[in-house]
Amino acid sequence: MVRLGIVGLGNMGSGHVAGIDRIKRCQLTAVCDIVPAKLERYKQYETFTDAGEMIRSGSIDAILIAVPHYDHTTIGIDALQNGIHVLTEKPISVHKADCERLIAAHTDKNLVFAAMFNQRTDPFYKRIRNIVKNGELGEIRRTACVATNWFRTEAYYASGGWRATWGGEGGGVLLNQCPHTLDLFQWICGMPTKVRAFCNFGRFHDIEVEDDVTAYLEYANGANGIFVATTGEAPGTSRLEIAGDRGRLVFENDKITFDRTEMSVAEFCATSKESFGTPATWQCNVPENSHGPQHAGITQNFIDCILDGGDLIAPAAEGIHSVEFANAMLYSTFTGKTVDLPLDSAAYEAELKERIRTSKHTKAVREDVVVDMNSSFR
Amino acid sequence: MVRLGIVGLGNMGSGHVAGIDRIKRCQLTAVCDIVPAKLERYKQYETFTDAGEMIRSGSIDAILIAVPHYDHTTIGIDALQNGIHVLTEKPISVHKADCERLIAAHTDKNLVFAAMFNQRTDPFYKRIRNIVKNGELGEIRRTACVATNWFRTEAYYASGGWRATWGGEGGGVLLNQCPHTLDLFQWICGMPTKVRAFCNFGRFHDIEVEDDVTAYLEYANGANGIFVATTGEAPGTSRLEIAGDRGRLVFENDKITFDRTEMSVAEFCATSKESFGTPATWQCNVPENSHGPQHAGITQNFIDCILDGGDLIAPAAEGIHSVEFANAMLYSTFTGKTVDLPLDSAAYEAELKERIRTSKHTKAVREDVVVDMNSSFR
Repeated sequence: MVRLGIVGLGNMGSGHVAGIDRIKRCQLTAVCDIVPAKLERYKQYETFTDAGEMIRSGSIDAILIAVPHYDHTTIGIDALQNGIHVLTEKPISVHKADCERLIAAHTDKNLVFAAMFNQRTDPFYKRIRNIVKNGELGEIRRTACVATNWFRTEAYYASGGWRATWGGEGGGVLLNQCPHTLDLFQWICGMPTKVRAFCNFGRFHDIEVEDDVTAYLEYANGANGIFVATTGEAPGTSRLEIAGDRGRLVFENDKITFDRTEMSVAEFCATSKESFGTPATWQCNVPENSHGPQHAGITQNFIDCILDGGDLIAPAAEGIHSVEFANAMLYSTFTGKTVDLPLDSAAYEAELKERIRTSKHTKAVREDVVVDMNSSFR
Repeated sequence: MVRLGIVGLGNMGSGHVAGIDRIKRCQLTAVCDIVPAKLERYKQYETFTDAGEMIRSGSIDAILIAVPHYDHTTIGIDALQNGIHVLTEKPISVHKADCERLIAAHTDKNLVFAAMFNQRTDPFYKRIRNIVKNGELGEIRRTACVATNWFRTEAYYASGGWRATWGGEGGGVLLNQCPHTLDLFQWICGMPTKVRAFCNFGRFHDIEVEDDVTAYLEYANGANGIFVATTGEAPGTSRLEIAGDRGRLVFENDKITFDRTEMSVAEFCATSKESFGTPATWQCNVPENSHGPQHAGITQNFIDCILDGGDLIAPAAEGIHSVEFANAMLYSTFTGKTVDLPLDSAAYEAELKERIRTSKHTKAVREDVVVDMNSSFR
């Protein structure tokens, strides 16, 4: 049995508390929030207003971190340095340098350190990744990841003063809505080596950060691709398209379509004597109908790894990639240039801090906002 | 009855001759090609090896130009200046300055001057355009035009020495395969005002011009978008996606899907009190099942306008847009910068001429290539 503490009882944290009974061999013993009023519903657990106190209380073996993003780093480091297993919400940090600090704190490899990339448990994405990793699609030539279905209202942004500010989140759609998308994208297709992005700040909402992103990507093998995301469109599009030397895979509308060429496209191109010939293609409808265990799957895997060892579905160290990807898109926009990866983490941190320092945006915060997180869990 | 001459008896021109019987009130009286051997099949018509002679022969009222791209300009100007109605294949010219010269030659407005944008006769695209122009989709927010289904073999490029060279075509996929796509894109969504493009030259083939393009677009109203095209992928994707203030339209796999929001997305965003609310959306499957009369439709419309007056489906003057769009993407790549439209046509022409002058690429031309143009007519 693992004694778990949850820190942060906002939208995500309270959801994790509500779902904790589904997790085997895990006992929720403590909860923590800096707002005392949020603790009142949870009198059956030990309660804390200070994460450090909970970490040092002796009441928990593991912590689930669901506070605003910047504190993933500070609380994560504190927990790891005090012998507590850590499962952190995404993003693991706001910027790459903080990711490096957080990951560097994981010196005791007996501690399990995971990240809540729940969509890695989705059988659709697992199948896609297998198709790519097994070489069925051939070498990747082009990627297209479109996530414009993250529509958010002005009310959403007004529901928390920290939301959609450089100081509070370190970004907008890239840091809040897209970490899952970016993690899956790099988990399946690998990281790009060059990024030229065009972010628009406050295009659809009264916010200072990006709510609209288009990026051109290049990969080490010569492949290229695009990434498009926004919180300003409805109904928007969620589509992953990967073209390879053996055809094309599209995931959209809960359907995987894999058009597999009978032979290598490059070989057909080089050897065919027909001007207008195309390689014969099979349309493969890849079967799948469930989205898997999601958050509960990641939490159970975390608990199982603590008790039994084994492999994490989402090691926290891999969380640096989606952050670096997001940072690179912002940095490209800030500088108006193509950014080479790996990203210079110190340069990016300095740039972000300058934006925080010079922020002049005054945020309207409203109290009348209706929050139904069931609409957000995706 | 209009007496028509066709110049250029290559892939396209011979197709036009074969289809001419379907055109009412049109009599093919003359054909022309600089290669005498190509004329042997056409002894029932008056034959020429010089376009100027055919234009001045007194045997034709109208000319259909189907020669390699650069000569659309020179032959078009010659015909217009000699009182001949002109229907030119796409692109109307290779670069914007030539388009301007060609269009400037159309001083006699009694002459009908049209371009072979046959896909404008496609009922799918006509419906999409109506949905946009009638405001059903609301103001456009984002566009995405993907045309990666233009796969071409090495044999295709080797089938003509002029193909895929700066001197012969003035570009690759943008000038040869994409004029229709670019024309439809701008016909439906309007022209962008800024273009940042990333062209790859000879990525998939042994050619000096672009066979792979990704571009980021911005429009005057703040909308943005992408354009992606290549001749290197199979089976590739043909998809037009337009997000507007009243939803989203997708055309792919011969199906138009229009997700129409019940209210303005901007208004919902501003007034909803729900953090995670989205506007109610109707999924409208827009009916259509034919691709229309295509080339025959444009040719008939050209003949009808000569005899009866009326409106052209594709006035040649509108052909400047797809050329300027293509040129802008190349110019952005050449300069490594965002290009503002309208494009500086003289600057682009100078840049293109420099590429022609310094071209060092030696092209392999093969004689064993099988050409089946039925696979190209799309």
